[in-house]
Amino acid sequence: MDRTDWLAQIKNPADLRKLTFPQVQELCAQIRQVLTDTVSHTGGHLSSNLGVVELTVALHRELNLPQDTLLFDVGHQCYTHKLLTGRYDRFATLRRYGGLSGFPNPQESPYDAFVAGHSSTSLSVACGIAAAKRLHGEKSYTVALIGDGALTGGLAYEGLSNLGREKGRLIVVLNDNRMSIDRNVGFVARYLTKLRSRAKYIRAKDRFASVIAHTPLIGRWLYRKIFRLKTGIKNALYRRSSMFEEMGLYYLGPVDGHDLKTLTKAIRAAKTIDRPVLLHVVTIKGKGFEYAAEHPDTYHGVSAFDKEVGVVAADKPTFSSVFGKTMEQLAEQDPSVCAVTAAMSSGTGLTGFAERFPDRFFDVGIAEEHAVTFASAMASRELRPVVAVYSTFLQRGYDQIVNDVSIMGNHVVLAVDRAGPVPADGETHQGLYDAAFLRTVPGMRIDAPANFTELRQMLQADLYDQTGPFAIRYPKGGEPERLRDYQPRREACTWLPRDGAKVLLVTYGTLFARVAAAADRLPYPAAVLKLNRIWPLDEQAVRQAARFRHVFFFEEAARAGGIGEAFGSAMMQDGVGACFTLSAVEGPIPCCTVQQAAALTGLDEEGILHTVQTVVKEEESCASP
Amino acid sequence: MDRTDWLAQIKNPADLRKLTFPQVQELCAQIRQVLTDTVSHTGGHLSSNLGVVELTVALHRELNLPQDTLLFDVGHQCYTHKLLTGRYDRFATLRRYGGLSGFPNPQESPYDAFVAGHSSTSLSVACGIAAAKRLHGEKSYTVALIGDGALTGGLAYEGLSNLGREKGRLIVVLNDNRMSIDRNVGFVARYLTKLRSRAKYIRAKDRFASVIAHTPLIGRWLYRKIFRLKTGIKNALYRRSSMFEEMGLYYLGPVDGHDLKTLTKAIRAAKTIDRPVLLHVVTIKGKGFEYAAEHPDTYHGVSAFDKEVGVVAADKPTFSSVFGKTMEQLAEQDPSVCAVTAAMSSGTGLTGFAERFPDRFFDVGIAEEHAVTFASAMASRELRPVVAVYSTFLQRGYDQIVNDVSIMGNHVVLAVDRAGPVPADGETHQGLYDAAFLRTVPGMRIDAPANFTELRQMLQADLYDQTGPFAIRYPKGGEPERLRDYQPRREACTWLPRDGAKVLLVTYGTLFARVAAAADRLPYPAAVLKLNRIWPLDEQAVRQAARFRHVFFFEEAARAGGIGEAFGSAMMQDGVGACFTLSAVEGPIPCCTVQQAAALTGLDEEGILHTVQTVVKEEESCASP
Repeated sequence: MDRTDWLAQIKNPADLRKLTFPQVQELCAQIRQVLTDTVSHTGGHLSSNLGVVELTVALHRELNLPQDTLLFDVGHQCYTHKLLTGRYDRFATLRRYGGLSGFPNPQESPYDAFVAGHSSTSLSVACGIAAAKRLHGEKSYTVALIGDGALTGGLAYEGLSNLGREKGRLIVVLNDNRMSIDRNVGFVARYLTKLRSRAKYIRAKDRFASVIAHTPLIGRWLYRKIFRLKTGIKNALYRRSSMFEEMGLYYLGPVDGHDLKTLTKAIRAAKTIDRPVLLHVVTIKGKGFEYAAEHPDTYHGVSAFDKEVGVVAADKPTFSSVFGKTMEQLAEQDPSVCAVTAAMSSGTGLTGFAERFPDRFFDVGIAEEHAVTFASAMASRELRPVVAVYSTFLQRGYDQIVNDVSIMGNHVVLAVDRAGPVPADGETHQGLYDAAFLRTVPGMRIDAPANFTELRQMLQADLYDQTGPFAIRYPKGGEPERLRDYQPRREACTWLPRDGAKVLLVTYGTLFARVAAAADRLPYPAAVLKLNRIWPLDEQAVRQAARFRHVFFFEEAARAGGIGEAFGSAMMQDGVGACFTLSAVEGPIPCCTVQQAAALTGLDEEGILHTVQTVVKEEESCASP
Repeated sequence: MDRTDWLAQIKNPADLRKLTFPQVQELCAQIRQVLTDTVSHTGGHLSSNLGVVELTVALHRELNLPQDTLLFDVGHQCYTHKLLTGRYDRFATLRRYGGLSGFPNPQESPYDAFVAGHSSTSLSVACGIAAAKRLHGEKSYTVALIGDGALTGGLAYEGLSNLGREKGRLIVVLNDNRMSIDRNVGFVARYLTKLRSRAKYIRAKDRFASVIAHTPLIGRWLYRKIFRLKTGIKNALYRRSSMFEEMGLYYLGPVDGHDLKTLTKAIRAAKTIDRPVLLHVVTIKGKGFEYAAEHPDTYHGVSAFDKEVGVVAADKPTFSSVFGKTMEQLAEQDPSVCAVTAAMSSGTGLTGFAERFPDRFFDVGIAEEHAVTFASAMASRELRPVVAVYSTFLQRGYDQIVNDVSIMGNHVVLAVDRAGPVPADGETHQGLYDAAFLRTVPGMRIDAPANFTELRQMLQADLYDQTGPFAIRYPKGGEPERLRDYQPRREACTWLPRDGAKVLLVTYGTLFARVAAAADRLPYPAAVLKLNRIWPLDEQAVRQAARFRHVFFFEEAARAGGIGEAFGSAMMQDGVGACFTLSAVEGPIPCCTVQQAAALTGLDEEGILHTVQTVVKEEESCASP
């Protein structure tokens, strides 16, 4: 590459401000190159990052970071931000264990103001930071960069509703890449379409702003004065009353998010206004990488790929794809079967369902709370809704599961995808808590399939055998090789007995593969108990387990409140003197692969073996005279 | 009373439709009388119910219930609805054990379409029911009655965002009683004020609607035709483009919610429109009962009172009032102390704080998710926020506690009010799950004070001794009499040892009073262990407990995932042969007093005694040869 390596010269925003516009344009081209190269190796969020290159650069140039605060909603579009703040040399470690996080992380850099992994939080965070600045007498700006998709979440609206309390220096940059449009969800999508169609208005306004606001001090004063004449010049410049204006925001836009000069002027204009501003920026998701621009959904979050060929659809079935196919089969036979998801239709394997049964498919946007309550209402009217949501995002629906599903005992099946460790996204995306929080819900029954056949059977059974709230939890990815031919039995639990075994290993889900393998390698006979319905516990199984001398429980989920604790406590209630050892996940799991997560938590085959052998040896040495 | 007992004649909406307008007006007066009389005896939600008498009557007359569906958001304003649907004779049992619920309850009546207790759910429920009707080919109306306060919740917005998918026969009745105004929260409040100020517009429109829509068949057809000429006559009739129009709703209003004739016409007009309608009705909270109209907040939820005198402010301190006072003292000394609540400022005892420290008091509206994330952002900027929320509503903030507080380890103190059984509100309001769901959060520490002194000490300690996420949970009401002079020790747990005790009773919170009393009454010595920091467990205490022969754990909270299970499991891990018995709450608790709840769950003094004696006796008979 004979072009200048601009990124190598930029350690902070001050370096960036030294560049001329043409140089910045070269920089943007280089950033796109680095993004595409790196993500094709590391996997990650590509299209959203390609869309905000110029926007991020412009914000870095016009804001005084890190005194000013730049918040990324969801946070997966912060790669350019990372490249511009001294992390270019480590960028190849993105999403690797010990490397850079794919999300903002304050421990990584003072330029990362707040952790973000779940959607729609940035406005609430901006409110909190702005309030703190006000109380501390700080005068800096707080800027939240939020996508149109994230605006469908209720939390964003709660944040919007509270923005008005802070008087100024609060800028909401709406990154409108029309992703909520593709999903065609809600009024925000429709409304943004309408706003974009009057793009000519920004021109006049923008020209005006650039003329007046160019000389910073007087310009700012003058600009404010004029904007304060509410019914006068302001209205001449652009159409009055948008929905955002009614929401108490000063609306500016729409602005072309790939035109650096316009962006610069718009950000300068936004800084002069003495109440919260919404700056509407239109970007193209995937901009600059042909494959990604054409199929932004495919490149939203990707695994490593060949950038010459693009992402090739994987043939390998996953729990998600098997779930989706099963749903299609069930829906074919039964017109009451419905699927609900919250902006995760492809991730949960429901694309085919959506195409074949559009009337019975509901993508409600990033709105897990609504998804749950909505499904419960459908269930109250003789429909059979299945809510497919990732474990980590289902946390948003906890109250609705307790109040709107459980109290009426409505027959809602929660398909909890990405349960257990999730590769590369790190702490904010692990599916560790679902078993624990779901089992607090009265009447909830939870299943954990270990392979595809079991998932099919359980889904069918949960839809038809009984009524009430159900959850089926399964991990990202495929079935364990060892269990490909495992034939599940339709029982609450499955025993692998061993003659003369004094040691019992209890587990559930795909971890069963590793536990069974470890059991085979022990130098003494060890029985295995696999829980199929993990909650409520099978009382008989607990009693039988209590007859062993050593009971080990292996759980690839959070220890506190998990199934293992319940099992231990239940054994205890039976008053037995067995020795119980619970091995589960303590604390959050960082960015790493699923294999690394297993090793880190002591739940790979070696770790399991080690746990059993250490405890049994200790106990023997105690028992010896 | 020489007036006609109209209510006695009305068993269903058909009876209601037979009445003339003057008769209906008499009926409304009678309803107000019954509401005030009954609630002054039973306690309950008075002002909101007095506000919707005419509105409920009009809806009952104009809808075809229960084929049409009437949904009450939050649901505490459904008393008139209950009186009109065959529950007048049982109305005195309101909010009593075995009596009528204070909220809609499908098990009580086919006219109660869905359980509602938590705010902002009705639009999501309406979406689900409308979708089901569409799939079943039913043509009836679905009506959600939602207050302006409930509209501040994110879930309501998610519901709004999804309403557009259903084409028609969906009516959102916005009961604007300006309660969100009194709290001055958010843009909805500001916007509704603006809408009300143009009340003249409804007149013209209304007149038009009444003329055309009066002959049902042709009128409806004609009305639709005309409304479809979007830029024509419609615009001449009322101002174009309100925020709700942009949200995809057909806006009708504002309408005087106490004028039966106008209401009737407006509902008829709403029924003719072939897309989701928002009917904006302005009501006066507390209408018809002087005290309640003047102080609607005081009469929002009340205990029994003397209706001649009105509610007299209680002098008796409660955990909430002690919390509020302590917050004021802390805020006096430390300018970084802030209080955040979600539309529960008086309930959580923060009224005084709000008056004295308006800059540091944040009532964010019914927006628990925002409250948590917002507080975490403040904590990231050297403030000390305390989030005071009822246990049952904190369920809405679970994901935010996991992701936005815990991962960054931000120092947020959650003041969990109404933890444990809550009198009279029933299943939807019990504070049973907080200990279980909070302890799944990495790094969370939970305290449970047993009396006021302990609450003060713990709050102080949690704000200053360490950092990270904290929760303090305490019940509604006052400290137990027995513990008034109890002097807490600043330790993780407190032992009441007894010489020669083989029996140990473990507990936490105010239940300690009953457990200690029961221990005194046992015929053999029994030690008591009171957990002060209930999570994480004090490992040393667990080990010491394991030395007893019988360990009982009493927990006035949900068993599944609770502290007792963790304690049992931890004892088990130590490999001891003690006999462990966990007595906690299984399943939801219905409408009853706190004393009844204790008796129902076996956690009153007698129940505790019984549990211990039964188990110990069984064990002895087993042990005998």
